[in-house]
Amino acid sequence: MMKREKLAEGVRAGITSFQGLIAHGRGEAFDYLIGERTLPPAFEATRTAVAMLLLARHPVLSVNGNVAALVPSEIVKLSKLLDAPLEINIFYRTEERVRRIKEHLLKHGAPENKVLGDKPDALIPGLEHARAKAAKEGIYSADVVLTPLEDGDRCEALVRMGKKVIAIDLNPLSRTARAATVTIVDDLTRAVNNMIRLTTELKDASRSELEKLVENFDNKENLQAMLRAITERLVQLDIIELD
Amino acid sequence: MMKREKLAEGVRAGITSFQGLIAHGRGEAFDYLIGERTLPPAFEATRTAVAMLLLARHPVLSVNGNVAALVPSEIVKLSKLLDAPLEINIFYRTEERVRRIKEHLLKHGAPENKVLGDKPDALIPGLEHARAKAAKEGIYSADVVLTPLEDGDRCEALVRMGKKVIAIDLNPLSRTARAATVTIVDDLTRAVNNMIRLTTELKDASRSELEKLVENFDNKENLQAMLRAITERLVQLDIIELD
Repeated sequence: MMKREKLAEGVRAGITSFQGLIAHGRGEAFDYLIGERTLPPAFEATRTAVAMLLLARHPVLSVNGNVAALVPSEIVKLSKLLDAPLEINIFYRTEERVRRIKEHLLKHGAPENKVLGDKPDALIPGLEHARAKAAKEGIYSADVVLTPLEDGDRCEALVRMGKKVIAIDLNPLSRTARAATVTIVDDLTRAVNNMIRLTTELKDASRSELEKLVENFDNKENLQAMLRAITERLVQLDIIELD
Repeated sequence: MMKREKLAEGVRAGITSFQGLIAHGRGEAFDYLIGERTLPPAFEATRTAVAMLLLARHPVLSVNGNVAALVPSEIVKLSKLLDAPLEINIFYRTEERVRRIKEHLLKHGAPENKVLGDKPDALIPGLEHARAKAAKEGIYSADVVLTPLEDGDRCEALVRMGKKVIAIDLNPLSRTARAATVTIVDDLTRAVNNMIRLTTELKDASRSELEKLVENFDNKENLQAMLRAITERLVQLDIIELD
């Protein structure tokens, strides 16, 4: 499978962590339950996320080891379309791994001055030191942050700072999914590709149109819709595959 | 988390594969849905599996990289209680990894002559060469095989050979779960510990008692019960955690 190979390659290249592999496996299980496709509520969440990023004064896209391994070109492309910098932000931080992820992003076309996170100069309140590190000109001062595959603690800390946080998380029950402002319950690759397409589509929309999209969205309702879809699929699978 | 650390250590020691980490993550997601405990149908499947192993003429316990990393002492203990040899059987076979797993099992108290799989001298029909390798005196001639965390192809191939196959798999919908004779939908560590306890309990039971346990078990029904339990839990979580 293509994704697994990319991740294994990411580990060998010092970009992805072992924990990243386990997290990916958890995602795979939920994706299996979802049916490995973008469900309508997830697409709605993605559209809202794009509107929010287009409306932002200072949007930032957070990049971890799995994002760098799985969608390097796509995240660079999205960063350019949104004119939003990338910030490397990894759970098990080593300066070596940050450096390798940065090189990887540059290799995939990111301009040097649009990749932050290798010289953190600010701390996010309420997190232990290693996890709190952020760039003052990046996530620390951002009003809207896209954090694909973020952990619950950090997602909650960013929300407490008053930021709008967009998460991509296949588990609609995770702490991240529940804490984020907008949660896209979808596979990372599908979600980022949808975001690229929707950014192009919505780029010329008026502010009031974008604002309406954001106002009409309720994250809790959206998560419930996703959870119901998974539950229904399990009920169906019971009938179809096991009887 | 203890298990993840054991697996990361397993990778560093050359015992566990990257794919093993991803597979563990998938298991974690299903275990989360199950509630991280042994549900009654899983316990019933475990009891049946133990009865089947005690009745066996020639039982064999299959060991892969995750089993060796997560429950080395436990699988050795179970092997001694059941007087069943261990056979190393890994998806991404390299002789180096087989050797390291063997050393690891010996270090955890396995007698040298009870660890097979490093000199395969038979092929399981219907699998590609590397995956088909087995020990003639082990899995190849076994009547009952415990294959924790086995892939679907190999599980099906063993069943086609007429063997009784016991799988431990947290996904009740996986091909392995559906192909196995008895599927224990439970976490590996919990399942193996339950097997140790139940082997001690059932060791002195009569053959007819054990046969009755096996006859009264229906794997399809058991999987449906597990699937319904997961579905109910999702419905409950929707009500409790999101409303």
